[in-house]
Amino acid sequence: MKRGPANATLMTATDMPNESHGATHPLEYIFHPRSIAIVGISADLPKLWIKRLYLESLIKNKYPGQIYLVNPKGGEMDGLPMYRSVKDIPGPVDHVVICVPAAHTPKIMEECRDIGVKVVHVFSSGYAETGEPDRIELQNRLVAVAKQGNMRIIGPNCLGLFYPKGRIGLSADLCMEPGPIGFLCQSGGNVTFMARHAASRGLRFSKIVSYGNACDIDESDLLDYFASDAETKVIAAYIEGAHDGARLVKVLKRAAAAKPVVVFKGGFSPDGLRAAASHTGSLAGSDTVWDGLLKQVGAIRVYSVEEMVDVLVALLRVRPFRGLNVCAIGHGGGASVMATDELSRAGFRLIPIPEGIRESLKEFVDLANSMLRNPIDLGTGFVPDAMEIVAKMGSRPPGEYLREVAAAGGMPRARRLNALLKQWPGLDLVVYHHGFDISPVPLERARAAGGPGSIVLAAYDCELPKAVVLHSMGDNNSFEASIDVRQLAADLGLPLFLSMRGAAAALRKLADYNMAYPERLAGLAEPGTEPQPSHRA
Amino acid sequence: MKRGPANATLMTATDMPNESHGATHPLEYIFHPRSIAIVGISADLPKLWIKRLYLESLIKNKYPGQIYLVNPKGGEMDGLPMYRSVKDIPGPVDHVVICVPAAHTPKIMEECRDIGVKVVHVFSSGYAETGEPDRIELQNRLVAVAKQGNMRIIGPNCLGLFYPKGRIGLSADLCMEPGPIGFLCQSGGNVTFMARHAASRGLRFSKIVSYGNACDIDESDLLDYFASDAETKVIAAYIEGAHDGARLVKVLKRAAAAKPVVVFKGGFSPDGLRAAASHTGSLAGSDTVWDGLLKQVGAIRVYSVEEMVDVLVALLRVRPFRGLNVCAIGHGGGASVMATDELSRAGFRLIPIPEGIRESLKEFVDLANSMLRNPIDLGTGFVPDAMEIVAKMGSRPPGEYLREVAAAGGMPRARRLNALLKQWPGLDLVVYHHGFDISPVPLERARAAGGPGSIVLAAYDCELPKAVVLHSMGDNNSFEASIDVRQLAADLGLPLFLSMRGAAAALRKLADYNMAYPERLAGLAEPGTEPQPSHRA
Repeated sequence: MKRGPANATLMTATDMPNESHGATHPLEYIFHPRSIAIVGISADLPKLWIKRLYLESLIKNKYPGQIYLVNPKGGEMDGLPMYRSVKDIPGPVDHVVICVPAAHTPKIMEECRDIGVKVVHVFSSGYAETGEPDRIELQNRLVAVAKQGNMRIIGPNCLGLFYPKGRIGLSADLCMEPGPIGFLCQSGGNVTFMARHAASRGLRFSKIVSYGNACDIDESDLLDYFASDAETKVIAAYIEGAHDGARLVKVLKRAAAAKPVVVFKGGFSPDGLRAAASHTGSLAGSDTVWDGLLKQVGAIRVYSVEEMVDVLVALLRVRPFRGLNVCAIGHGGGASVMATDELSRAGFRLIPIPEGIRESLKEFVDLANSMLRNPIDLGTGFVPDAMEIVAKMGSRPPGEYLREVAAAGGMPRARRLNALLKQWPGLDLVVYHHGFDISPVPLERARAAGGPGSIVLAAYDCELPKAVVLHSMGDNNSFEASIDVRQLAADLGLPLFLSMRGAAAALRKLADYNMAYPERLAGLAEPGTEPQPSHRA
Repeated sequence: MKRGPANATLMTATDMPNESHGATHPLEYIFHPRSIAIVGISADLPKLWIKRLYLESLIKNKYPGQIYLVNPKGGEMDGLPMYRSVKDIPGPVDHVVICVPAAHTPKIMEECRDIGVKVVHVFSSGYAETGEPDRIELQNRLVAVAKQGNMRIIGPNCLGLFYPKGRIGLSADLCMEPGPIGFLCQSGGNVTFMARHAASRGLRFSKIVSYGNACDIDESDLLDYFASDAETKVIAAYIEGAHDGARLVKVLKRAAAAKPVVVFKGGFSPDGLRAAASHTGSLAGSDTVWDGLLKQVGAIRVYSVEEMVDVLVALLRVRPFRGLNVCAIGHGGGASVMATDELSRAGFRLIPIPEGIRESLKEFVDLANSMLRNPIDLGTGFVPDAMEIVAKMGSRPPGEYLREVAAAGGMPRARRLNALLKQWPGLDLVVYHHGFDISPVPLERARAAGGPGSIVLAAYDCELPKAVVLHSMGDNNSFEASIDVRQLAADLGLPLFLSMRGAAAALRKLADYNMAYPERLAGLAEPGTEPQPSHRA
């Protein structure tokens, strides 16, 4: 089976066989509703946020289908009539979001069945996840009614669909630019955390499905769908439990053969397993079983949302590299020592700089304020460039000016440095880094364009596989000062990390993944060091 | 030897014997200079930041001694004359900061010796850390000159002193409120990162010494000093290498017997060891040796500045607890599962809620939107309180209003919840948590006073050993929204953590530390579960 790097020539998955062996995946239609009805919407507090989630996001994002609102009290909201029942809706209804309390849901479901609704997303909770027998029975009734009408259920107890290309939004602030990541997420909260955090790192989503208790559409359905989905190049999954272990193995295998699959198994500890059951009613297998399964199918396992984003950044933005020889370049002695420790314990090797390159570096990096042995502490090496940036930028927005400098070829010392790095035999990867709070003088946003900005510009100019780590925003002031250069790095398409530990772990997982799928390394120059087993869990 | 909890009755260390067995420690005088001279100060770029570090911080903080400036060009700066040489200074000089290039330093040192200077802080770098023979020799000359004049040297290649009580500042933004932490730091960058990050979490410092290459005053001198210092209740150390291993063991033992000692050994990997040598010229021992040494003396080892701050928060702000039975309480199902996993893998146990307490909780926590099995997902449980906060607060600053609510006894549902928790037999610790980006609706600063604010108020009201974790600030908007409640938690004296993983690891280290020093647990009620070996490295 043909495979390519995620950021280059990944096979378009429409060519792949899927479980249905048809041209269109059986779940495809759930992403293309002609109309959406929101049942139980209300302007009353505290339900106002349902309006914000499911009405305002559709209006703001110009969802092209019909929007229907349903509330037994009638009236209108934002210029739209409120129908007293789904049965009063004067047109076909493809997708219904049900936001009424659990006890009222079966009746709404029956009405949906009767008018020919295709997909019901049950937002409300209070079903099997409570562990109470009557509420498990309530969930079973939803399934029974859906079967009678050939309806599919998303949920209950979840946020439902996010499909930027189809203008189906969620929280009104989520980025609606489509991208390569398909994300299935058993939790609702992890949808918004993941979507916002990934967006701040420059990543974009094809589709997100928050699927909660999975009483009908489950993790296997969604993995199978994303495996076939041409709009999805990388699959990310937050899963608390499996409903059908044998099917999950089969589907994961197919998905991981088609494209990178990153899995965060929520509830990996014994107490966490119990918590997962209490959250989404999941029958979760033991952690050992999950670990073996994910290894067997060739998926990448992560242990937090932050790590998931780190690994996705690595997969989508770091050019494949073959060995583990790295050079760390940044500002600060302590920061350079810490960068070395983190990279080293992830299994990377900071190989010595060849003497000829070191001598050339001395021409513009002052030995008195720097370390020139890999790690390279630039010391004052970039100060002339940084000062020039701040002087020429004047009162213009830092990000805007730095983009222009990047487009015009970057800064002279960074070009010189990168030209030297290219001559370094056996170097696999360059990690540029800057720590905001290691500066003895507190940074402001404009001045941050100088030092940190020149690190980002240097990383952008670098033609080797690379990453950029902007870290140590220890207080509100330094976080604020870092906004423009973080945004710049994300916008320039750089692999941006916010901690050296996170970067090192994700880059090592990328290295291991590339070794396991050698097609990703095809066409690369001769190898550096082969990866050794990681020292990290 | 008497020992007490760090946040309560720690022995005042003036009663302790020190190496000199005198009433005043031989290093005490370095913190009390009658005058400070800054040599090599200049208004020229890029040296301007030396002015900001060493002149502006003294003026802004109203240092009560004399300030003298020295620059061979003469002239004046900020209304102060610039003397052409230290020899021209018209009064006694106790402390000199030397900021001239390395090659010029021996001559300045000789002049300092001749006028009777007591302490020289050599800011400049370019000495033994470069590994170049001529620069090692240069450093040796500094030591020789200092000996002739009975001067002490701080550095070279470091930031020097920070002593809030004596109004000796560094970067002008560092918090000048004195506190219990004495910090010795071989790196300069880690001083500012640590000082700013710790301050944002509510921690304060007695004294910080950045000591760089340690050609004279070294890690053992400083540990010995802090062990005896009555103003220091907890010692934190970033150390890249030891100059005298046998003495370090002896001094660390004495220090760790007197008060908690937290050590971040920079350069713990093989490549990191080499980097440390290149940074501060340290002769660093192998990681195994350090690990054994720190265990033997009873110090707490950490692996990052962030972890150091987490552990200090735990030591200084979490009341000692005996067992590992924890209850996690917060917002969000996924967040509750993840909290459970992190606490569980640190060795904590989320014991089931006694049925009676669970029944009482159901009276005000709606089962449909929550988890009531420990972890407790409050769901909409605090929504009425949160709505009341936002409504009553009006346009007032959130932090100000919440402080008033806290002072007036907090919110009714939180009080009810905490009263129930107090009846829970065997519960050792309560961890309150809120994730900002798990909210489907993006938060603004004012609205964040409601949900997250009520979590902070609940934690404040809780009378059991407790921690509060405010996490998942995944983008700029949520970070901004979290500012007021983070500040509130820090100001209220709560143990504030910014990630569940960090909190769990630090709380576990605290539990282990308290078990190793049973005096800390004296007077506590009967034990819950005894700590088991941690599953984490």
